[in-house]
Amino acid sequence: MKRKINFNAGPAILPEEVLKHAAEAVIEYNNSGLSILEISHRGKAFDNIIQESCELISELCGLNNDHTVLWMHGGGRLQFSMIPMNFLAQNGSAGYIDSGHWAEEALEYATYYGDVQILASSKEHTYNRLPQWPEHISKDLAYLHYTTNNTIYGTQYKNVPDCKVPLIADMSSDIFSCKRDYASYAMFYAAAQKNIGPAGCAVAVIRKDMLQRVVRDLPPMLRYQAHAEQGSVLNTPPVFAIYASLLMLRWTKAKGIAAIEKENNQKAELLYSEVERNSLFHANVKRKEDRSTMNVCFTAKNKDDESAFLNFCEMQNIIGIKGHRSAGGFRVSIYNAMPLKDVQKLVSVMQEYEKD
Amino acid sequence: MKRKINFNAGPAILPEEVLKHAAEAVIEYNNSGLSILEISHRGKAFDNIIQESCELISELCGLNNDHTVLWMHGGGRLQFSMIPMNFLAQNGSAGYIDSGHWAEEALEYATYYGDVQILASSKEHTYNRLPQWPEHISKDLAYLHYTTNNTIYGTQYKNVPDCKVPLIADMSSDIFSCKRDYASYAMFYAAAQKNIGPAGCAVAVIRKDMLQRVVRDLPPMLRYQAHAEQGSVLNTPPVFAIYASLLMLRWTKAKGIAAIEKENNQKAELLYSEVERNSLFHANVKRKEDRSTMNVCFTAKNKDDESAFLNFCEMQNIIGIKGHRSAGGFRVSIYNAMPLKDVQKLVSVMQEYEKD
Repeated sequence: MKRKINFNAGPAILPEEVLKHAAEAVIEYNNSGLSILEISHRGKAFDNIIQESCELISELCGLNNDHTVLWMHGGGRLQFSMIPMNFLAQNGSAGYIDSGHWAEEALEYATYYGDVQILASSKEHTYNRLPQWPEHISKDLAYLHYTTNNTIYGTQYKNVPDCKVPLIADMSSDIFSCKRDYASYAMFYAAAQKNIGPAGCAVAVIRKDMLQRVVRDLPPMLRYQAHAEQGSVLNTPPVFAIYASLLMLRWTKAKGIAAIEKENNQKAELLYSEVERNSLFHANVKRKEDRSTMNVCFTAKNKDDESAFLNFCEMQNIIGIKGHRSAGGFRVSIYNAMPLKDVQKLVSVMQEYEKD
Repeated sequence: MKRKINFNAGPAILPEEVLKHAAEAVIEYNNSGLSILEISHRGKAFDNIIQESCELISELCGLNNDHTVLWMHGGGRLQFSMIPMNFLAQNGSAGYIDSGHWAEEALEYATYYGDVQILASSKEHTYNRLPQWPEHISKDLAYLHYTTNNTIYGTQYKNVPDCKVPLIADMSSDIFSCKRDYASYAMFYAAAQKNIGPAGCAVAVIRKDMLQRVVRDLPPMLRYQAHAEQGSVLNTPPVFAIYASLLMLRWTKAKGIAAIEKENNQKAELLYSEVERNSLFHANVKRKEDRSTMNVCFTAKNKDDESAFLNFCEMQNIIGIKGHRSAGGFRVSIYNAMPLKDVQKLVSVMQEYEKD
């Protein structure tokens, strides 16, 4: 088998050792005589998987006992729904930062439950920069929601912004990519299919005092408190997706967030430098401080190069670099699992293409 | 590897060929140079998986174009929430049949959204029989919800009951187990982890006219219509769980529902006969017409035999027969993937234990 060099935005590349161990567990989990797909979610084996994975997330994020780590179904959009359901009263207001497509989806979901204030937006610039962080944030807001990394447009908030109200962050596309003061969030969450593991589950980390702030009666499946009380096993969880994520968490811990961050910076710098040097392309995000280390977005100066460069890459075994339909051009996703050598390969292919 | 004989209630046994193909796909999907965990949910490969799996469900259930087949996140409880959210207005009423733990959970979830009428219940008999189907069902009900198979108590509705209002069925533990007039339902649904595939996804089949009956404003993730419009890819779906389910659907089709039903009846008869013959046990469900072909529940006449028989089975490589905590005793789950020979083995172990 010749593995593709896969720059897909998500579901995305996973390390080969994670795939190998996940495949083995589908045949037999840990000498149990059962597949990981067949073990009971109420048994000791799965208890251990939940416990180890929650502890690893807590450790990787530098959390103490003030936060609870929850495995959830449903990806990011279920969180877009549950956050306002749980925390935004019908007569209340929540603040949202509109930094891109997913940020906008999140705020639209909130409008079904209460008043939404868009505190900052870069929509008029087609999201090619981060919106300026609001100077004055009303203390009356139930929370402030923002998206740390904007996958489609290639922008990223690296530092934790100043915020006096409960700060909630969607970290779906850059969790574990860099050191961050994770403990300062009232809540952060991420759909798995980038740096956590395969599609099919999500992680929500919530400061415990938030669990008491629920503003409406909700059936248990939609109430964070109920998931916390049941230790993420309120109902049958997506066992395989959580186990594959545990394998990825172990990989992340073995490498260490500091080393991962360093390599992510190297990969991003290499690619942005080439985009700027190469006469055929230009970077979509001009402000260097706003650029994402996870998704590098650029455009061909000459429209004809768009499909031609995609084809050229495909002949070199490189896939997944077509930009999102709402942004066009190219998007190269270089999540934690993407090795430096594959980014070097792409850079050399960009150089070859220029000479061609 | 010595495979356990796994009578777990769910996640449950899967055929070895399904596990083998699923494991292969985790390493590489279909010569793509990518793992099934890495393919894009917007690409042709996954389009084909969604399309084939929906067509197979439609074919297995004998549906025509009047129904739409949806892959969902979140297991049964998300459906418990979404059904009343979508179909039960705040000033409306829905009818529920209370035939067991899951039926009761479903109706409790509905109370958050509107008025719930319990039309029949066997709770006072600790659910050891099916409640009598109500004779008069008000035409004003938004829908009538029931659970076809009660996993914990071992009862099952085999025929489609008479109903003049939209009939909604939770078939989580017996879908595809027998021929049924699936087309007569306004909606039926099932969490995957029994006869469909591994935990991590659910199937909802909805008659298209129901999609127009939505009674409240809901964010897209919680609106059936939005999932239908997006062909089950409203957001990143649980790709692996759906693919493994497709493998199971192919297995189901190759065997055929008629043959599966025949074997399920054989397996159930064999086991109920032994429970009745064996001097140490008695069946929990006395009414033969109410007995489930999926979960055979029985009790030891002598309390001491409870843990002793479990241990005896474990020494014979048999696991998963402990009854649910709310019912006690034994529960033997014999879903579609359970081979007849393993039920024969259990029967011979019951006989040995009696002689011992």
